[in-house]
Amino acid sequence: MPYTVHFMPADIYVQTRTGDNLLQLAVEAGVHINASCGGDGACGKCRVMITSGEVSCRDSEKLTPQEYAQGWRLACRSTVQSDLEVLIPEQPPLHGQAVRKARIHAHETRHATASTEAVQGFDPPVHVYKLQLTPPTLTDNASDFTRIQRTLRKDHGIEVEGIELNALKKLPHAAREGVWQLTVAIAGRRIIRIEPGAASAAHYAVAFDIGTTSLWGHLIDLNTGSLLAEASAYNPQISCGDDVISRIIYSQKQGGLAHLQMVLVHELSALIDELLLKSGIIKDDISHITAAGNTVMSHLLLGIDPKYLREAPYVPAASIIPRVNASDIGLSVPGPVPLIVLPCVASYVGGDIVAGVVASGMHETDMLTLYIDIGTNGEIVLGNRDWLMTASCSAGPSFEGGGLTCGMRAMPGAIEGFSISDADFEPMIVTIGRKRPVGICGSGAINILDEFMETGIIARNGKFDRGLPTRRIRQGAGGFEYVLVESPLSGTGADIVITEADIDNIMRAKAAMFAGCHALLANAALTFSDLDQVIIAGAFGDYIDLEKAVAIGLFPDIPRERYTFIGNGSLAGARLAAGSQKYLETAEDVARKMTNIELSEDRSFMDKYISGLFLPHTDSGLFPTVTARLEKTKGGFS
Amino acid sequence: MPYTVHFMPADIYVQTRTGDNLLQLAVEAGVHINASCGGDGACGKCRVMITSGEVSCRDSEKLTPQEYAQGWRLACRSTVQSDLEVLIPEQPPLHGQAVRKARIHAHETRHATASTEAVQGFDPPVHVYKLQLTPPTLTDNASDFTRIQRTLRKDHGIEVEGIELNALKKLPHAAREGVWQLTVAIAGRRIIRIEPGAASAAHYAVAFDIGTTSLWGHLIDLNTGSLLAEASAYNPQISCGDDVISRIIYSQKQGGLAHLQMVLVHELSALIDELLLKSGIIKDDISHITAAGNTVMSHLLLGIDPKYLREAPYVPAASIIPRVNASDIGLSVPGPVPLIVLPCVASYVGGDIVAGVVASGMHETDMLTLYIDIGTNGEIVLGNRDWLMTASCSAGPSFEGGGLTCGMRAMPGAIEGFSISDADFEPMIVTIGRKRPVGICGSGAINILDEFMETGIIARNGKFDRGLPTRRIRQGAGGFEYVLVESPLSGTGADIVITEADIDNIMRAKAAMFAGCHALLANAALTFSDLDQVIIAGAFGDYIDLEKAVAIGLFPDIPRERYTFIGNGSLAGARLAAGSQKYLETAEDVARKMTNIELSEDRSFMDKYISGLFLPHTDSGLFPTVTARLEKTKGGFS
Repeated sequence: MPYTVHFMPADIYVQTRTGDNLLQLAVEAGVHINASCGGDGACGKCRVMITSGEVSCRDSEKLTPQEYAQGWRLACRSTVQSDLEVLIPEQPPLHGQAVRKARIHAHETRHATASTEAVQGFDPPVHVYKLQLTPPTLTDNASDFTRIQRTLRKDHGIEVEGIELNALKKLPHAAREGVWQLTVAIAGRRIIRIEPGAASAAHYAVAFDIGTTSLWGHLIDLNTGSLLAEASAYNPQISCGDDVISRIIYSQKQGGLAHLQMVLVHELSALIDELLLKSGIIKDDISHITAAGNTVMSHLLLGIDPKYLREAPYVPAASIIPRVNASDIGLSVPGPVPLIVLPCVASYVGGDIVAGVVASGMHETDMLTLYIDIGTNGEIVLGNRDWLMTASCSAGPSFEGGGLTCGMRAMPGAIEGFSISDADFEPMIVTIGRKRPVGICGSGAINILDEFMETGIIARNGKFDRGLPTRRIRQGAGGFEYVLVESPLSGTGADIVITEADIDNIMRAKAAMFAGCHALLANAALTFSDLDQVIIAGAFGDYIDLEKAVAIGLFPDIPRERYTFIGNGSLAGARLAAGSQKYLETAEDVARKMTNIELSEDRSFMDKYISGLFLPHTDSGLFPTVTARLEKTKGGFS
Repeated sequence: MPYTVHFMPADIYVQTRTGDNLLQLAVEAGVHINASCGGDGACGKCRVMITSGEVSCRDSEKLTPQEYAQGWRLACRSTVQSDLEVLIPEQPPLHGQAVRKARIHAHETRHATASTEAVQGFDPPVHVYKLQLTPPTLTDNASDFTRIQRTLRKDHGIEVEGIELNALKKLPHAAREGVWQLTVAIAGRRIIRIEPGAASAAHYAVAFDIGTTSLWGHLIDLNTGSLLAEASAYNPQISCGDDVISRIIYSQKQGGLAHLQMVLVHELSALIDELLLKSGIIKDDISHITAAGNTVMSHLLLGIDPKYLREAPYVPAASIIPRVNASDIGLSVPGPVPLIVLPCVASYVGGDIVAGVVASGMHETDMLTLYIDIGTNGEIVLGNRDWLMTASCSAGPSFEGGGLTCGMRAMPGAIEGFSISDADFEPMIVTIGRKRPVGICGSGAINILDEFMETGIIARNGKFDRGLPTRRIRQGAGGFEYVLVESPLSGTGADIVITEADIDNIMRAKAAMFAGCHALLANAALTFSDLDQVIIAGAFGDYIDLEKAVAIGLFPDIPRERYTFIGNGSLAGARLAAGSQKYLETAEDVARKMTNIELSEDRSFMDKYISGLFLPHTDSGLFPTVTARLEKTKGGFS
């Protein structure tokens, strides 16, 4: 049920539903509550008084029975059960309330993906049919396979031409064991799997996003289209280099290519095992596997030498990747499971971006759209249904939590929600899953950078204000740092910090992404204000704060309603490809249609990048609303 | 040059050419010359006097210089150099001269295959193209594979959609090593092989006939369509049973199926090695492999359980066999070499017969045609362009030299040409290649049976006339036998004999084949005289004597000009399939069109079979010309 929560004394109203977590709600609404343990209930700092309405609340030794009777609750342990009025104690004056209220959160925009799925229809590259064959007689003793062909033609209007050898070997016994009832899996016009009887309708696919830093896998039930399990891991190639260039260099060493392929395939096999374990599915029931990745990852996955991807004129071996059997590259799946790798555009614009573009629908709209995929390799697409230009820039792994002292993927325990009290510079920390904090994920890094800038913890050049009256800023082993979580409350047993070097990394990443967008627009003689729509993709967690991302200069400062977030576009595309043959064909068309711009050959790109190494940007005219707000806030406090 | 050879005193004229062997010429013309060593020059019995004209003759210690000066030569060592008159000494009066002159020999009829090839055109399932790609530039950096697709489209009008993973892995380096010149092999719409540069145009195929008893392989140059090498071997499955039924029974034992597949594949790999050795071709240049075999062999080749082939209602797993990679079944070929198995019709009517029918062109003619494939499993097809009926019968291996005491395949040293002197019952023995005799091949067995019958060596029930004044008929270890070659002249060091039990085997084989033809015609309410054409196929040697095959009751007694011999139809078909995609498609159409008649379910078949266990047949009215001649010969001598 929908409810309204009224946070006091900030006087902020939030629409919510039964069961929503109060701390999560506050962080998303931009309401600061001191919280140090990520929402785990350990620090006891997020106490609020429920002055009206009901929450469901787990016990906590951090509250006495008296306090409990008075209405005190820990926000992190409370879920909404009715309309509420919530009093936050010792709340310093809030800045930027109006702006924060207008922020668009991932929760609201995620639906874009789901609706696209519905539009695409459900027509997976592998179909499963239950067949009732006519038993043979002396006057009709056509072969078993001919009988299947006949039945598919008559009952389903489908022509099949071939059958995998393993399936054919199984056929004579399966047909008789199932008393001429069979379940067959068909890819294209070829039968790839046969089971006796009609009992088993099991039919699953695995969709992979193969990122430079992170691997994500989804297990999908192809009978319903629903997601059964999710798993992720770091790309184990990281030990051979942080970005695609260093991976290519590694591949040129003796045995390097084979090693890169082997560790990747090994990890993907482990992810498959994890997905199966989580869902209780058996490996034999996987019909096919889809994978979207950048061009280098796609080459390495198949064991194709990526050497020429980084030598001008930057030519891939193939852009439309041929379909292979997953076991051919060593994936631990039985029999002929097709592996479908999404098509690439150019050396540095891969199947991950094609996957996301098609998932987002930007190839079908009249609106001038900018599509931004935030990853170690940042990719940008500009255009609409008539034309598509694309470019890539190396952002580094910091938006995936890589390259940070305490970085991590967007997993339970990752610090994502963050704010700082204007009064005492104490943080409000909310982690994914409200577990004890373990590290900082990409969206957390953006939120932290913004909050540091807004509260003056750092200057506009990214350096800490060392004169502030807080013990949280200190000289660490690697330079100045801010202590986000002290060791007693962290999930790692050590302090969780963010250093000036980490902030540098995040600044460089955001500068590269923004400069890429800027240069691509300039290439088309367009400006940010021409954009009708901006679509943001990336393997962030559930919560990326648009206003903060604009505030730090990562995204352009245009009206916020033009933004849509689609989450991990690459994974969404791989998942759509697993469920829709038409999607796949569209992806190939879109890949062919895209014109790639090599930013490394664009002299203005480096200038734009340098200008971006400031908060939000050296050219404040590019960020009018941010500049205006910062001026006003400053004014308010000075 | 064409010459005429006049054999005296028989007064028989033969058309011939420079270089033809005189002994071979005589045996083909039905002119008897005593000869015991197969034409090897060892026995010295085949002496003839050249009374006019010139022969080229190798020396022999069997002739004195005086004899040589008088004009004596060994027929087996003489080749025609001009018109000749040849006097054969001590020649007894000949019988059946007129008939023998009318005989149609394989030499004259073999051309049927060649002309069919010309008609089918040359469009192999794998094509090789030399390509000159446009080198990439910064403004045109489409992928390597896209460049190939473009060039194939522009220069050859060909659309390819896929590429084998191994070829794709090779592509980036091959393209640059060849300075954007490439040689690609394409199967269907898929690139299966890539080589740098345009130097190598090597492009070969292997065609196999996989018989129950014998395996034959041809290596074909796909650039010219020419045959480069031939190899053959016994099917090693023989040790698991002589015929398809016993192979199926064996396959049901623990590990039986895997063993049958393994030994077959192993022997085929050895044949490939032999073909390569003979032709100096390397394995990498084999583009594809075709195979034609009966349905049981096709199942065993692919490792498909043949169990249900012998259980009513006799259903194959597949009739149109899916294309696989040869290495998938264990053939020792590198990379993705397609293995194309010709389509089957029914459990006992396989790809071998479909191959031969299409090679013979019977599916395109208006003439009512009977197609007979002589093999361990004898197959028969009746019909024309409008309809095709087919049946099979188990003839046993004796027409392939199996199941005989001294049986062998049609290889050098196999006794093929055979006649017996009416005077002293001494044999004229001519072997394939005129090597020392090693054994008896299928066509030799037919010739021997006929000659035995014609000369009264055996009675019409196949039993030896034990009272004849010749030491060649004797009681051997296994019953009565005729000594064809005594040990000093044999290539094995032992006597080469044919026993009464061997003759029984040949009689049963010919009875089964004829009964099959008879029953199939009866099924269509037709008789032998309705036939416009009879096509004989079988893995015989170069020389099968039609008149003799009719005389023993193997083939119907209809006008001889209606007969055509096409040799090994299965191998011819496999070879055509290797060179013509259209042929393959036609074969699939023909396979679908054929109606199979199960003779095991036809009660009249067994009656007809029993009637056939006589020479030529219990019903002499079915063999009017043979009966008339035998009566006349008998009259002449009695």
